[in-house]
Amino acid sequence: MRPHPIAVCTALACACLAPAAHAKSNLLELLAQKGVITMDEYAELKAEQKGEPTVSTDDGFKLSTRDSTTSTPPSFQVGTLQQLDYAAYDDDKAALSDGSELRRSRLSIGGTFLTDWQYRVEYEFSGTTGVTDAYVTYNAHKPFSLTLGQFKQPFGMEAYASDKNLTFMERGLPFAFVITRAPGIGAGTSGANWSINGGLFGEPVGNAQAGNDGYGAAARASWAPILTDEGVVHLGLGATWRVPTQDNSTNASGPKFDTVRFRSKPESNVLAQRFVDTGEIRDVNDYTTVGLELAAARGAASFQGEYQMAQVSRGGASTLDFDGWYAQFAWTITGEARPYLANRGFFDGIRPSNPFGKTGWGAFELALRLSEIDLTDGNIHGGKERNATAALNWYLNQYLRVSANLVKVLEVDGGPMHDDEPTIFQTRLQFAY
Amino acid sequence: MRPHPIAVCTALACACLAPAAHAKSNLLELLAQKGVITMDEYAELKAEQKGEPTVSTDDGFKLSTRDSTTSTPPSFQVGTLQQLDYAAYDDDKAALSDGSELRRSRLSIGGTFLTDWQYRVEYEFSGTTGVTDAYVTYNAHKPFSLTLGQFKQPFGMEAYASDKNLTFMERGLPFAFVITRAPGIGAGTSGANWSINGGLFGEPVGNAQAGNDGYGAAARASWAPILTDEGVVHLGLGATWRVPTQDNSTNASGPKFDTVRFRSKPESNVLAQRFVDTGEIRDVNDYTTVGLELAAARGAASFQGEYQMAQVSRGGASTLDFDGWYAQFAWTITGEARPYLANRGFFDGIRPSNPFGKTGWGAFELALRLSEIDLTDGNIHGGKERNATAALNWYLNQYLRVSANLVKVLEVDGGPMHDDEPTIFQTRLQFAY
Amino acid sequence: MRPHPIAVCTALACACLAPAAHAKSNLLELLAQKGVITMDEYAELKAEQKGEPTVSTDDGFKLSTRDSTTSTPPSFQVGTLQQLDYAAYDDDKAALSDGSELRRSRLSIGGTFLTDWQYRVEYEFSGTTGVTDAYVTYNAHKPFSLTLGQFKQPFGMEAYASDKNLTFMERGLPFAFVITRAPGIGAGTSGANWSINGGLFGEPVGNAQAGNDGYGAAARASWAPILTDEGVVHLGLGATWRVPTQDNSTNASGPKFDTVRFRSKPESNVLAQRFVDTGEIRDVNDYTTVGLELAAARGAASFQGEYQMAQVSRGGASTLDFDGWYAQFAWTITGEARPYLANRGFFDGIRPSNPFGKTGWGAFELALRLSEIDLTDGNIHGGKERNATAALNWYLNQYLRVSANLVKVLEVDGGPMHDDEPTIFQTRLQFAY
Repeated sequence: MRPHPIAVCTALACACLAPAAHAKSNLLELLAQKGVITMDEYAELKAEQKGEPTVSTDDGFKLSTRDSTTSTPPSFQVGTLQQLDYAAYDDDKAALSDGSELRRSRLSIGGTFLTDWQYRVEYEFSGTTGVTDAYVTYNAHKPFSLTLGQFKQPFGMEAYASDKNLTFMERGLPFAFVITRAPGIGAGTSGANWSINGGLFGEPVGNAQAGNDGYGAAARASWAPILTDEGVVHLGLGATWRVPTQDNSTNASGPKFDTVRFRSKPESNVLAQRFVDTGEIRDVNDYTTVGLELAAARGAASFQGEYQMAQVSRGGASTLDFDGWYAQFAWTITGEARPYLANRGFFDGIRPSNPFGKTGWGAFELALRLSEIDLTDGNIHGGKERNATAALNWYLNQYLRVSANLVKVLEVDGGPMHDDEPTIFQTRLQFAY
Repeated sequence: MRPHPIAVCTALACACLAPAAHAKSNLLELLAQKGVITMDEYAELKAEQKGEPTVSTDDGFKLSTRDSTTSTPPSFQVGTLQQLDYAAYDDDKAALSDGSELRRSRLSIGGTFLTDWQYRVEYEFSGTTGVTDAYVTYNAHKPFSLTLGQFKQPFGMEAYASDKNLTFMERGLPFAFVITRAPGIGAGTSGANWSINGGLFGEPVGNAQAGNDGYGAAARASWAPILTDEGVVHLGLGATWRVPTQDNSTNASGPKFDTVRFRSKPESNVLAQRFVDTGEIRDVNDYTTVGLELAAARGAASFQGEYQMAQVSRGGASTLDFDGWYAQFAWTITGEARPYLANRGFFDGIRPSNPFGKTGWGAFELALRLSEIDLTDGNIHGGKERNATAALNWYLNQYLRVSANLVKVLEVDGGPMHDDEPTIFQTRLQFAY
Repeated sequence: MRPHPIAVCTALACACLAPAAHAKSNLLELLAQKGVITMDEYAELKAEQKGEPTVSTDDGFKLSTRDSTTSTPPSFQVGTLQQLDYAAYDDDKAALSDGSELRRSRLSIGGTFLTDWQYRVEYEFSGTTGVTDAYVTYNAHKPFSLTLGQFKQPFGMEAYASDKNLTFMERGLPFAFVITRAPGIGAGTSGANWSINGGLFGEPVGNAQAGNDGYGAAARASWAPILTDEGVVHLGLGATWRVPTQDNSTNASGPKFDTVRFRSKPESNVLAQRFVDTGEIRDVNDYTTVGLELAAARGAASFQGEYQMAQVSRGGASTLDFDGWYAQFAWTITGEARPYLANRGFFDGIRPSNPFGKTGWGAFELALRLSEIDLTDGNIHGGKERNATAALNWYLNQYLRVSANLVKVLEVDGGPMHDDEPTIFQTRLQFAY
């Protein structure tokens, strides 16, 4: 009644070839090998297993099916990102309010469906509730992928990287030039040490400005001329072009309300005041941004810097040029390296080797940043700001992180807060699961 | 020590009777049959299996338990509906703003609990965040069911059908008469080719009007005199009665603020303007709506039409009569039939036979609709509108759909946008999982 | 080829020692015992099982992994709380609006990660959408636990207990003195019949008051001198201290806008009016609340009472003293006892012995409450109110509950609604999963 064990082995082919394969076998394969069940029964039960989920807890709590006919079986995950901040301001000019806020409070679902499709939907509950991500990606022809919906425009190494993996609590001053997420269509591909992404985008969901919606394009390329186990050198280039929402009211007089505005808080978000602000620049035809990226990591040390500029073309007035840059250095005291994602062109988060608990303390990181933005040009007096920031990050485990930032506003020249140069202490508890 | 295989078979009864049953057996049954484990051990392990989940990916990612003592074991599913629209308006009178919007952005949870109960909770994140569905259903005495909470009032074939399975991007003009979801208690039952649903309802959750909340009743019956594998003929009848929120302020003078308002955008939602609008009709005692439905499908072709009227009874002023209708024809180029849900009395969505991917292109559908609404009667000059719409739908797979609609506003007579008859092009990306 | 069964038993040790252990064994252990698989194979497969989830439906739909190396394997659960209320007001003075509302509409995720950590994130969609819970708890050194994020301040037996397990639809009048959730850091521990919790807290997330955020501390201790299968006697003591948000505007004249406000609806939430209200008390230095708790349960009967007082210290004006109390008695007609959570110091919800369905009707409970609050002191004339409430609760099953409350406002003396003493009938449908 039972097939001879050797016959089973022959039929099972690779599952029997080596002890290594054996180690990966599951109960069904074992029982078939031992002849407890027949090959037909094995095949039948194997097919039924497709509906059995497995859980991975390496990166949150993720459910997958056992469908062995594909390398990307259907999967599902609910995720969350919580950032609770406290900030205190030492300022002798303006009344900056100390306090706490939930900087980000997000809930997301995502996964793989029909093997070649991925989706992600994320909502933000801090401030006005709304959508961040809402997209599907088709990746039947890897590494090429096509994305539809609202997602991040490819531009800027720090802007494009995940909100949960930033070295400092807030992105550097030139982030003022970036529109992060917008609805559109994007395409991307990548190689062992490079990536290219581009897309066409409409007006970000939730922007309630009257008039015909703005639109634009964004593209970014990254290249790592050096990429070894010891370290990486990263070069990046990005550009965006955008036509703002067009005022279509028939009774508008004077310059049209086709506006663009660049502004920034001093790398701290609890306070209400923007320290540099162009105000609404009217009668804008379109504007272009260009970004240059240089980064490097070796062991526990890493460097990252970007220069970004924006050129605003106006009807009946001169073209405006604004720019900014930041340069930062980080060092993981406990030795962990910052992983580089070559197919995305940015750094991932640090995973402590010894998580906090009975046998470890987690990872500690020190970082320094200089950043600058200049929003004054032509008849626009948005101001110029330069900041220095020191950071201490404590990664308790892969999901929990405590950050402390000391921001010294070095110079504010012009703009709404001229010569107001506070010192800011802020701290964050982050839970990303 | 082992029971004789034949004895096991006898004990397992039906699991052994036929090879067909064998195909459905699982590992435990197989091992018991083979005498590897005893019947007692089988029973014990079988009982333990109750806690093992199975995943179905036929309609999203659904988890169920293996509890074999019931036909409806506990289950759980997280779902989402995302609709991203873009619309462009060709209009020589008003300034209609082109652009995109997230038409619907929903997150839901639902499932079966304690075997006889089902629940569903859904939130809408587009526009003002809030609840859509929030109900429990008791169905111990199938096909009879009792529903409590906020859910859809039974009225109108197109109104009652799922938001994700509409043939056109927006429901027809007479949808202006319908209040979809409200909190209340509902009951329903159905047979092989008919359904009846009714309920008592309060004011929709989130309606912040001052005064004692409105209330009402709704009922709908469907009957399919022809229902075969080849086709279906559907007849439907619905009615609602509602008392609006009652102004209970003690110092009101003139007509009371017990108001009702009917209005409609031109079957396109991105623009802000309503093309027909009764304004707030004051001093309303109650109002009644009646709806007649006729639909038919044969193979890849289907027809659907509804006539709806509303009668508004006022204190100290004449009764008002408004009405509207639509008629639509759809044809699936790729041959898929539109499934009819006899126990609900409406059509389900189209499932492409060959999903988009390496071996297929999905399903394509063409559709045409004429619709009309008349909101002018007595001293109310809401206007009359007639539209024609052509649609092309591309169902990439069961979860993804791209729609393109061309709406020609044929006539606008009276109301806030008198004689303004734009042509509208709009397109939608829908992800429903 | 097979190891002798006895050898397997020796190796499996405790799994073989007794028939009782046998009953808990799973298929792998059984097959190892029987010698179908070897001990090495058993160990391998056992390790692979870690990724297999199990579902528990005892308290919602909860997923856990089978990781047998820890007593708290990673787990994940999505939960919801829905409360749909209807209220009718019999009042001859003010126009109180009858109607329905979604009192609470919440979605939560939570679970265990990395074995020693727990998290919970919950959003409220009723009224303004926002965060309720958002915290992580570290409990590697049980019973001691440390909590970070936004969570409930420990104060008040009724305030600290779960929103879904309240005997009456609304908490008693003295709840006006309580700030429930705030961001902060908390610590707690407990014994067999006692619990202590304390924490330092900032301003509740979403409070948009200008100025430096308020902060404070809260602590609560519970002790059950009698705690047997038959009954419990509970004593509790709590205190909070808080500095309100500090007005830091530089041009403020007169008393500073460091304000505190206590106010309360008449134990019914559908109406808009607060019946007692101190208004914004200005120039507050800080305020302290103290709460005393006494509760007892024996069989199906239970008593619970609290006295709470608030003392407000002001700059340049007299200290204010407000207080309130409630006393309630509940009796489960169907005999179920109200479980007491000794490690939390409050009662859990009632679980019906015979859920509603083919063989049962669920549990029924009767309850009575007297409550009072006095918000008049010094120059603050907030008013004094005394209420009596009768309640009938129908617990259909552990997840569904219908409540009916009859509130008689016995006395309103001073404050915004002086001498307005309505009778209120209200009912609630609750689904907590």
